[in-house]
Amino acid sequence: MTKKHTIILQPSGRRGQVDEGTSVRTAARELGVDIESICAENATCGKCMVLVEEGRFEKYHIDSKREHLSPVGAAERDYLQRRPKLLKEKGWEIGQVRLSCQCKILGDVLINVPEESRGNKQIVRKSARERHIEIKPAIRKYLVSMTPPNLERPIADWERLAKGLETSMRLVRGAEAELPRWHELTIDYQCLRTLSKTLRDSNWNVTVSVWQDKEVIEVQAGYVEDSYGAAVDIGSTTVALYLCNLRTGELLAAESEMNPQIVYGEDVMSRIQYTIEHPDGLEKLHKAIIGTLNKLLKQAAHTAKIKTSEILEMVLVGNSTMHHIVLNLHPKDLGLAPFVPAIHESVDIKARELGLHINASGNIHVLPTIASFVGADTSAVILAEEPHKQDENWLLIDVGTNAELVLGNRKRLVCTSTPTGPALEGAHVEYGMRAAPGAIERVHIDEKTLEPKYKVIGVEGWNTDHAEFKGQVKGICGSAIIDAVAELFRVGIVDSRGRFKKGLKSKRIREGENGWEYVIAWAEETSIGRDIPMTQQDVRQIQLAKAALYVAARTLLKRSNLQTPDKIILAGGFGSFIDKEKAMLIGLIPDCELNKVYAIGNAAGDGARIALLNVEKRNEIDSVTRKVERFELPTDPDFQNNFMLATSFPHMNEPFEHIAHLIPHRTADPMAKNFMK
Amino acid sequence: MTKKHTIILQPSGRRGQVDEGTSVRTAARELGVDIESICAENATCGKCMVLVEEGRFEKYHIDSKREHLSPVGAAERDYLQRRPKLLKEKGWEIGQVRLSCQCKILGDVLINVPEESRGNKQIVRKSARERHIEIKPAIRKYLVSMTPPNLERPIADWERLAKGLETSMRLVRGAEAELPRWHELTIDYQCLRTLSKTLRDSNWNVTVSVWQDKEVIEVQAGYVEDSYGAAVDIGSTTVALYLCNLRTGELLAAESEMNPQIVYGEDVMSRIQYTIEHPDGLEKLHKAIIGTLNKLLKQAAHTAKIKTSEILEMVLVGNSTMHHIVLNLHPKDLGLAPFVPAIHESVDIKARELGLHINASGNIHVLPTIASFVGADTSAVILAEEPHKQDENWLLIDVGTNAELVLGNRKRLVCTSTPTGPALEGAHVEYGMRAAPGAIERVHIDEKTLEPKYKVIGVEGWNTDHAEFKGQVKGICGSAIIDAVAELFRVGIVDSRGRFKKGLKSKRIREGENGWEYVIAWAEETSIGRDIPMTQQDVRQIQLAKAALYVAARTLLKRSNLQTPDKIILAGGFGSFIDKEKAMLIGLIPDCELNKVYAIGNAAGDGARIALLNVEKRNEIDSVTRKVERFELPTDPDFQNNFMLATSFPHMNEPFEHIAHLIPHRTADPMAKNFMK
Repeated sequence: MTKKHTIILQPSGRRGQVDEGTSVRTAARELGVDIESICAENATCGKCMVLVEEGRFEKYHIDSKREHLSPVGAAERDYLQRRPKLLKEKGWEIGQVRLSCQCKILGDVLINVPEESRGNKQIVRKSARERHIEIKPAIRKYLVSMTPPNLERPIADWERLAKGLETSMRLVRGAEAELPRWHELTIDYQCLRTLSKTLRDSNWNVTVSVWQDKEVIEVQAGYVEDSYGAAVDIGSTTVALYLCNLRTGELLAAESEMNPQIVYGEDVMSRIQYTIEHPDGLEKLHKAIIGTLNKLLKQAAHTAKIKTSEILEMVLVGNSTMHHIVLNLHPKDLGLAPFVPAIHESVDIKARELGLHINASGNIHVLPTIASFVGADTSAVILAEEPHKQDENWLLIDVGTNAELVLGNRKRLVCTSTPTGPALEGAHVEYGMRAAPGAIERVHIDEKTLEPKYKVIGVEGWNTDHAEFKGQVKGICGSAIIDAVAELFRVGIVDSRGRFKKGLKSKRIREGENGWEYVIAWAEETSIGRDIPMTQQDVRQIQLAKAALYVAARTLLKRSNLQTPDKIILAGGFGSFIDKEKAMLIGLIPDCELNKVYAIGNAAGDGARIALLNVEKRNEIDSVTRKVERFELPTDPDFQNNFMLATSFPHMNEPFEHIAHLIPHRTADPMAKNFMK
Repeated sequence: MTKKHTIILQPSGRRGQVDEGTSVRTAARELGVDIESICAENATCGKCMVLVEEGRFEKYHIDSKREHLSPVGAAERDYLQRRPKLLKEKGWEIGQVRLSCQCKILGDVLINVPEESRGNKQIVRKSARERHIEIKPAIRKYLVSMTPPNLERPIADWERLAKGLETSMRLVRGAEAELPRWHELTIDYQCLRTLSKTLRDSNWNVTVSVWQDKEVIEVQAGYVEDSYGAAVDIGSTTVALYLCNLRTGELLAAESEMNPQIVYGEDVMSRIQYTIEHPDGLEKLHKAIIGTLNKLLKQAAHTAKIKTSEILEMVLVGNSTMHHIVLNLHPKDLGLAPFVPAIHESVDIKARELGLHINASGNIHVLPTIASFVGADTSAVILAEEPHKQDENWLLIDVGTNAELVLGNRKRLVCTSTPTGPALEGAHVEYGMRAAPGAIERVHIDEKTLEPKYKVIGVEGWNTDHAEFKGQVKGICGSAIIDAVAELFRVGIVDSRGRFKKGLKSKRIREGENGWEYVIAWAEETSIGRDIPMTQQDVRQIQLAKAALYVAARTLLKRSNLQTPDKIILAGGFGSFIDKEKAMLIGLIPDCELNKVYAIGNAAGDGARIALLNVEKRNEIDSVTRKVERFELPTDPDFQNNFMLATSFPHMNEPFEHIAHLIPHRTADPMAKNFMK
């Protein structure tokens, strides 16, 4: 078996085990950190420079005891030694800088990826699950050679091309393919405008790009093999764009940016509110996202060394609000009861209608929405995970400030959504922060001493393992908040109703300004110079969030006559970092075998890519989403009562067999016995 | 039988016989002169005021001897007497002004339609042939009433509408109609943008306009019965727009304007040249025509008292050059050998792509072109006349500066085109002018005295009938030029080769500055103070034009193995005014029974209207034009020789049985014997 080594990437804090011999750039990409390169890894562009913080191969000596990276080879040395000025400018030492495409991992390393080398400014996580996507793009290219027109046969340019194209399509696709006759083919108007010139400039030899086997959207001189497409996931916080080769399926660039709409509101409800209160609100939000998409398109094209006009199609996904705003549809009715989107069906629209800068004749395909708060992103997750092809009942949960849930199998899918608030993402928690270097991401409390230990993003090991930890901690992120609440419950510091118990012997438990709290990190361990506690208030926030999520899941199970799902799939960034056991201990997710709980990362982006690369998948998801049953939780008459009951850890009246050994004690609550029966 | 009276309309010079009792406004409309009215002929808007030049009903006295118009009634008198200031401003006398909707014709009258009353600024001739057009528009309206969404059934607006629409369509169209399922329906993006608001504002009761049974292009609150469409014929000289009710087929307005491209070139070749020589040439020409179309749309909507946004579709026809320019396709290759259009097939395109101001989701349908100089206007003529449904062989000729010819029957259609030059339209002839008041339009020469008589547009009778003619003549228009040349040949002043004979005894035949000439009008009869002759040069111009047309017709006949056509149909304004016998005498058209020669006026406009009102006709003409065989004349090896031979009157080597009695003498030409055999 290949030896594994740990690589940690700064400043993102991403880390993981990779096979010995993997290049740093490849390892980084596997962990979701893209490092630039435009020389095809030939040690000539220098775009991929990284700084080796720990474990560098020192003294260029192969026999060194500390060989964590492969030695500097001739090409790399050449590149670096010729640029003393550059290195001096940056303040880097020659022994510290490596070309990440050249150096191979031979031991554990800590690598700093400087801003200028980062391929994407935000981390875009890739699905943990390997999926084979069959490449059947909506756009296919055909070479067409024509006899030039003459006075005997002066038929028009389009008809000449269409007849040649019919022949080419039949040759390439075979007799069994259902293909249109030449006069059933159409040509996009913008493409027609330049057709005559292209045909003559090319001497009547062209490559024709055909969309959906019917519409010609590009005619290029000569033989052109590749065309490109972009898949985009518009999240409320982050917009991620994946540029793919439509022929090979290869991912050529992954770019991301903050969603610029964030200045008009942190979450979707506040953005909807903004469009209701401001007459030009929708226009502002729409223009902002179109601007960002155009920026990402430009960046991705630059990375892939293509022109944006070579991008012939784009697939968009996003929650219903993002979906409406990018399509310039007013989102007002998404935010007002009875919460109705303008459209569920998938949309095909010319990029030029939206001012998106891909090929002038290119189309935008937007995946279908399912409900007001179950958007095209969920459609994409379904497409990526395929619960509709399973015999087992799967529960898909995509957690953000809003959680979207889908439950079912090949026979039936039901869905709902619930606002979970920002607590699970580290907001509205006193020292909460986003997952970033300096954030506590794991917490463990000793049940005897009641002393905690924790892990921090960007630092290896537990804080109790070494002394250097001091001064590193900045706050606590979502995964550690769940850990902390679960641990407080497990060791008996808070009871099943979330109340701090008084009289426990620990200096960490104290009455602070805002009620009882438990100190996780003392001021001297932090960079902010203040104790970092979990407060009674923080625990309450988590109780509300988890109760909302739990009731939503339970409602779907009840409507499907199921006790538990066979599998739980957590989509989105949040799910990738939580401790499944802890999440179950506080009742964030329903009871389920722990090894049947999966975190799959950004499945919405994967789904968008699948739809981009395989046109048949678009019909599949159209048809699946048309049949998904939607439930709005507030219509359940017992909702309020169920919600209150669900605030307890892990739950008043549910067995939670798979984590029963962790539950310290149970108080029977007579009110709870009829919970959702 | 109803008594008939003559009405002459100034300044257009249009005249005709109408039934006694017809209102002047109705009579004018029958003669192709639209007079405005927005009060539904209630004598309240005053838009239809006309000036009675001759034959007015004087002294408001019903027993007058000169009762050419019905007396002024109470409503009309009310209107006129209350507006002394308006009449004074215009310099009109109260006894001279009438409301044309109120006064009925009781005798012959000469009416002046002032600029402000004219419904259309140019004469738009209507087809002489009555045709029943079955109304099957591309757009149909359906009333859809929906149950408003609630929390139990919060499906999206579009799906709610589409499901309701599917039901409505099936109810209205019957079980036998092939109709799409709701999820096969689409909605235009611009229409989708306002959908949610319209549904709520209308309380979920809307009228939905569906294009081609598949795309929703408009959703209006409540019940709306009518929708509108425009049919447009873009001629090189005149642009004519017909606004129709798509439900009833009723013509609501007919507007026309000069084609503004005329400042960039009189004919299509010079405009093509302009686009080749000027980088922004196409853009200028394109913007000019789009501007004019928008102006006409506005005018027509005003006339019909509708909004331009209620116009849901537009059908465009025009020659290939006009077709390319309005579509913003470069016409370069239309003008350069081998003369190839960018596209033959019909085009459907969103009006917004072209900046045409109809409904934002409305479509433009452009009829197919057939060849470089056989355009969508010819397709429209075919659609209007239907040679493809005949057993007889029909020859369709549309004459302008370019002549387009189609020959054939249900089995086969062949077409060609030929440049005829502007001589047939009165240009490049010394005193030639367009058909307008003051133009000589008919000429007759006495075979014994060699003295002429003539008719002038805007004046009744022959000049020899009365003395008032003096000082009226301004020039000679196309129909009289053909008359004059034919008459010069018939009476023997010019020979069959077009040469003036010397030594004839007439003061009218003389050697002028530019060679021999025949004086039609003496200086004192004209308003220009100069003799108006036909010169040798003028005769030569006509010879070239008629030879081109004749060779074209003969080529088609030869390719179809025909000696003569069964019927000749002259389309366009020119054909409506020529004397068929004279045209045949000079060999402008092939030999044919005279009562089988028809002039049908603006058949292209009729064809556009047919395509607008009956969507099945679009498929019909698409399929017919795909099969029309095109011949380019210059590819015929004998073209030059045939052309030279065809310059003689009526033709060197053709019998011309039907006008043989008019041919004065025949010189056998040994070179001619193999003409086109």
